[in-house]
Amino acid sequence: MINATNLVNSLPAPDPVDSMRTERSATDFDTVKMHQFIEGSVEKSTQILNLYQSLERDPVLQTNPEDYDNSTHQDRELVAVRINQMARYLETESYEQWLRRLNLVTVFDPSLGIRLAINIGLFQNCIKGNGTQSQADYWTSYKEAGNVKQLYGCFGMTELGHGSNVAGCETTATFDEATDEFVINTPHIGATKWWIGGAAHSATHTVAYCRLIVKGKDYGVKTFVVPLRDCNHDLLPGIAIGDIGAKMGRSGVDNGWIQFSSVRIPRYYMLQKWCKVDRDGTVTLPPLEQLSYISLLGGRVGMATDSYRIAARFTTIALRYGITRRQFKQKPTDAQESKLLDYPLHQRRLIPFLALTYAMALGTNRLEIQYNTILKNLDVAIAKDDKKLILQCIQDIKSLFIDSGALKSTLTWLAADVIDQTRQACGGQGYSSYNGFGKAYNDWVVQCTWEGDNNVLSIAVGKTVIASVAQVLKGKPIDSTSSLAWLNNAKELSEKSNVLTSKSDLYDPSKVKLALEVLIVKYAVKLSGMLKANGNDLDKISAQRVKLSKLRCYHYLLETFIEKLSQVSDANLKKHLTKIIQLFGINSILNVNATDFLVYNIFNGEIASIIDNELVDELDTQIRPYVIGLTDSFQQPDRILNAFIGKFDGNIYENIHNGTMNIYKPFNSKAPYSPALESMLNRQELDVRLRHERSAQAARELSK
Amino acid sequence: MINATNLVNSLPAPDPVDSMRTERSATDFDTVKMHQFIEGSVEKSTQILNLYQSLERDPVLQTNPEDYDNSTHQDRELVAVRINQMARYLETESYEQWLRRLNLVTVFDPSLGIRLAINIGLFQNCIKGNGTQSQADYWTSYKEAGNVKQLYGCFGMTELGHGSNVAGCETTATFDEATDEFVINTPHIGATKWWIGGAAHSATHTVAYCRLIVKGKDYGVKTFVVPLRDCNHDLLPGIAIGDIGAKMGRSGVDNGWIQFSSVRIPRYYMLQKWCKVDRDGTVTLPPLEQLSYISLLGGRVGMATDSYRIAARFTTIALRYGITRRQFKQKPTDAQESKLLDYPLHQRRLIPFLALTYAMALGTNRLEIQYNTILKNLDVAIAKDDKKLILQCIQDIKSLFIDSGALKSTLTWLAADVIDQTRQACGGQGYSSYNGFGKAYNDWVVQCTWEGDNNVLSIAVGKTVIASVAQVLKGKPIDSTSSLAWLNNAKELSEKSNVLTSKSDLYDPSKVKLALEVLIVKYAVKLSGMLKANGNDLDKISAQRVKLSKLRCYHYLLETFIEKLSQVSDANLKKHLTKIIQLFGINSILNVNATDFLVYNIFNGEIASIIDNELVDELDTQIRPYVIGLTDSFQQPDRILNAFIGKFDGNIYENIHNGTMNIYKPFNSKAPYSPALESMLNRQELDVRLRHERSAQAARELSK
Repeated sequence: MINATNLVNSLPAPDPVDSMRTERSATDFDTVKMHQFIEGSVEKSTQILNLYQSLERDPVLQTNPEDYDNSTHQDRELVAVRINQMARYLETESYEQWLRRLNLVTVFDPSLGIRLAINIGLFQNCIKGNGTQSQADYWTSYKEAGNVKQLYGCFGMTELGHGSNVAGCETTATFDEATDEFVINTPHIGATKWWIGGAAHSATHTVAYCRLIVKGKDYGVKTFVVPLRDCNHDLLPGIAIGDIGAKMGRSGVDNGWIQFSSVRIPRYYMLQKWCKVDRDGTVTLPPLEQLSYISLLGGRVGMATDSYRIAARFTTIALRYGITRRQFKQKPTDAQESKLLDYPLHQRRLIPFLALTYAMALGTNRLEIQYNTILKNLDVAIAKDDKKLILQCIQDIKSLFIDSGALKSTLTWLAADVIDQTRQACGGQGYSSYNGFGKAYNDWVVQCTWEGDNNVLSIAVGKTVIASVAQVLKGKPIDSTSSLAWLNNAKELSEKSNVLTSKSDLYDPSKVKLALEVLIVKYAVKLSGMLKANGNDLDKISAQRVKLSKLRCYHYLLETFIEKLSQVSDANLKKHLTKIIQLFGINSILNVNATDFLVYNIFNGEIASIIDNELVDELDTQIRPYVIGLTDSFQQPDRILNAFIGKFDGNIYENIHNGTMNIYKPFNSKAPYSPALESMLNRQELDVRLRHERSAQAARELSK
Repeated sequence: MINATNLVNSLPAPDPVDSMRTERSATDFDTVKMHQFIEGSVEKSTQILNLYQSLERDPVLQTNPEDYDNSTHQDRELVAVRINQMARYLETESYEQWLRRLNLVTVFDPSLGIRLAINIGLFQNCIKGNGTQSQADYWTSYKEAGNVKQLYGCFGMTELGHGSNVAGCETTATFDEATDEFVINTPHIGATKWWIGGAAHSATHTVAYCRLIVKGKDYGVKTFVVPLRDCNHDLLPGIAIGDIGAKMGRSGVDNGWIQFSSVRIPRYYMLQKWCKVDRDGTVTLPPLEQLSYISLLGGRVGMATDSYRIAARFTTIALRYGITRRQFKQKPTDAQESKLLDYPLHQRRLIPFLALTYAMALGTNRLEIQYNTILKNLDVAIAKDDKKLILQCIQDIKSLFIDSGALKSTLTWLAADVIDQTRQACGGQGYSSYNGFGKAYNDWVVQCTWEGDNNVLSIAVGKTVIASVAQVLKGKPIDSTSSLAWLNNAKELSEKSNVLTSKSDLYDPSKVKLALEVLIVKYAVKLSGMLKANGNDLDKISAQRVKLSKLRCYHYLLETFIEKLSQVSDANLKKHLTKIIQLFGINSILNVNATDFLVYNIFNGEIASIIDNELVDELDTQIRPYVIGLTDSFQQPDRILNAFIGKFDGNIYENIHNGTMNIYKPFNSKAPYSPALESMLNRQELDVRLRHERSAQAARELSK
């Protein structure tokens, strides 16, 4: 059978487009309404759809499959050109909309995202957070850094010898009273600023984290604006800068190292909202320095949100491939091979991630609102000098510190897992660069390490949860506005057992939430006991604190999902969301943490077995027919997904084959190094190459 | 304090070399003897040390940090040159020694490893396994492919539409009786040979997996030698080949696609040890074709061994960094910051991997011996036509199929986890390319997908375990030579509960092994019950079968470790190995799988809590002082490790700093794209760029 179609075939070819069409037509709900639910509001959803359209069309910002072939040099150049383009939008759209744009480009070009975030989110937020209003105005407005003009900032915090321990930084800023200057100096190799994004080639200035030394006294680490390059982009004297070279990912970022050799800056380059040095060297120390931390929390909130978007991207790709790719026949009599996603194992590998992604979306949307509300309140409170509101803000920052810490760490880990597992679920195609998994993973995983290493953040969260439970059990309730206020039931919770005893309990998210609360409280009590026994050595229960932090994150997500679901009136959405929250609760919470639920008698072994052997599959099967609608609801267009196997049309084989041929034309079949191969294959015998010096004749001659 | 040392410092710099020296001096056992234990024999250990020395010195094969900066093009060229170099060793050392060399280069250059393995291990083994002796002799000896001369083979199995389902391949080989030829044809896009390593630019020939069609009848997939390029390395007519482009890793491999358009080959190019087509089109079908599978199992055995070596590489690097890197002070009064590895959490993140790596080494050494023994016996059996020995070989191949399937899948997954987790434990430095994690991970993870997708292999293993237990319980014992013969105790095992009830039980590897056996049997019984209930639908218990396969792998490792440990006479080694096997059992087996041990009442919640909250830390603490000796025992030299932070001397900061500067001289501080950045920063106001067309004046004029 020869058909004259797009391609000449001599046998019928697979028809994945038909599968996609059929599966999509099963959608019995409105995917735009679902998107509005996922993103939290009609306005936000509309804004995002508009931005996606803009990004798909923008000639510089739009993705292309051949970008996956870029060398480091090409990546860096592309990002530089894109920064320029992003800067133009900064001049013409609201800052709030621009930040959302930055959010979205980060899904497909994290190097671009971070290079701008370092300048705007770290350098300039540091100036705003630690500098006076006049200092902030000077650098960001008057010198136009806020529009990515004149100045480009980098964030000079990390040193070769000091990462997480910022307070241990060793670069010195020594006050020279004679000249009214600070002398910035790198005292030894370990104090070299290292990893500094944008330092290698872009930045004109840095905020340097240095020990303030005045009259021989060390006041600890403070922040200073230090110019690195002049307006011709030439390095200033005393500044040594180099490229730190190749990285696992984010090759578009010019991370560099900086050494200062007695670089002098005027005293007023010190950021002095909180700590101030007078002309005569009198140091005034900060009263409310904790308020400055808020500027660092923004990054964590952003990374939690990134986790949702990257998970949405790869669950979309993998589920689309799961219904277009066929492999093996489930029954020998089947006419066609089976779709991957018709195998229960494949459902189990992917559908729980879909549920998790929905939970991540809702939880991170709440976190974003929580953060923006504090920022707004703080501005009002400081402007009006409203002491009561300032105190409330401090309380809210404490909640945000815990919530963002738990979510940033847990969700960036989970997102890494989602990228990795969805890749594996796409078999060989998961390994092709053109489906995006590899680059995304390599770009992603640094999120688990930077801006608060996940373990360091988690142990802080765990510590607070343990302390909060202990406090409540001692009779001192937690502030009712705290996001941990539900721990005020700790006593009651700590006494519960066998919370989940039937299938109907397991299907009830509010009961799952209760079970999780019981676990968190009982586990915290156990850890308090361990602390008492070990002489209060928190280090010895760090692994446990990490676990506690993860449980706290799950609680935040589930609590949010329950509340949001209760507000849904559309029955078509509600039907599916109910299954999704059930699967999230049953798999991500109960099944993943089953050992602990068993140890603390929250459910028994029989229930654990039902969860693992029945319920996960039961829900997978129920969600299975709607995966295309449910992933279409993320609304990520082809240019954002940027994957041959993940396109909307489902035409996987032609997209792979033609897409690859567009990049690598088969016309030239020889590699540039072909002569090396040819001369290897066509080489002479070893005996000839050894000039017959090991021949019988040689033996005779040489033995004479 | 200014010291004139290697570098001018104005304050004392960190001294990681001192830490390394102190830690290494704590070694109270002979690391060469330990290496002999790890590698299984004095001979193998000596061979490996000699090969490491040869590899460190070989000017082409030796690694260099700047290799991490290679572009795809540079990687491919480097690998081509290295293949040439490896080919020379093939002419001068024994094949057995050369295979070990290939093993070892795979640790640091997996692209090189696989490009040679495809030619030697897949292409030529396929010819040996499926071709007659004369066919094998012709292609590998007479045409010199065995010496990487004249011919270079690739392995034409996978198609765009068919990966795991090899039997579903659609390329056709149609017998043309008129000309005594086969016509090889790619009928449609889905049958395009895809992923074929070496096809894009290197291979002169392929073994093509094609459906044999004779007189209109389809005999299923058979193998054919098809020439692709002539001796001038020009493509032959009818052959279309292209590069499949960028991949997540293994950029040194020229994976390609191949389409055959009615390519004619002589009948005798079909590999006909088992299946034969006569001149008149009579097809003789294979009697003992299962014996041909052995050639594919070699790859799995190799990947299991690779898992040990890559895990050894990264536990060495991360543990060395763990004792040289300091961060935070555990007590404010401490003179220096604490070593990372002095934190219990850090110990817990790394030391269990050390124990796992030891277990992997012993288990994979056993697997290698098991494989080589079968190969040897099979040669003898076939040469002597020894029916009894052939039957024993078939039985042994069955065991090997299960054992290699369980180990290949479980260990390649675990190794991926080791690379990923050890990377995270090195913080930012884990993300630098120069410490090797990123490249190793990207190169590694395809091992979980190819040559038997891990899930596909695992479900096959799980199925056999379930069937074996069911068979025993029905009263039909398993062959006593089977590696699953211990399942003959299934009835007794299935009746046990509360196998581990005390700390001393947990510390006893033989009791841990018993507990694991009880779990495997009880779980298999449970799954048999599920099968009965679901109408024998194996697909519905696939996730469970994967779990069972992992448990089988752990059993193999623990069984081997117990036996090997019992043979150790050196008390210094024994002391440490006892701790290591205990930690392996307690963490990797009992803790990781605690839920299942609880569900099947093999230990209770209290024991689970003791394991997680006490014993893992207890053993970590005991092993902690010896980690340098225990990783030195892997004997991987600096050139193999190829990591600034993992070098033997421990001089991490100078190695990072000077190493990076050697590659990226800081002299040129401007990027080639600097003009783009400069023109962005120095651009005019938006109003100017818009030619003042939105000015008040424009408004006035245009509103008139």
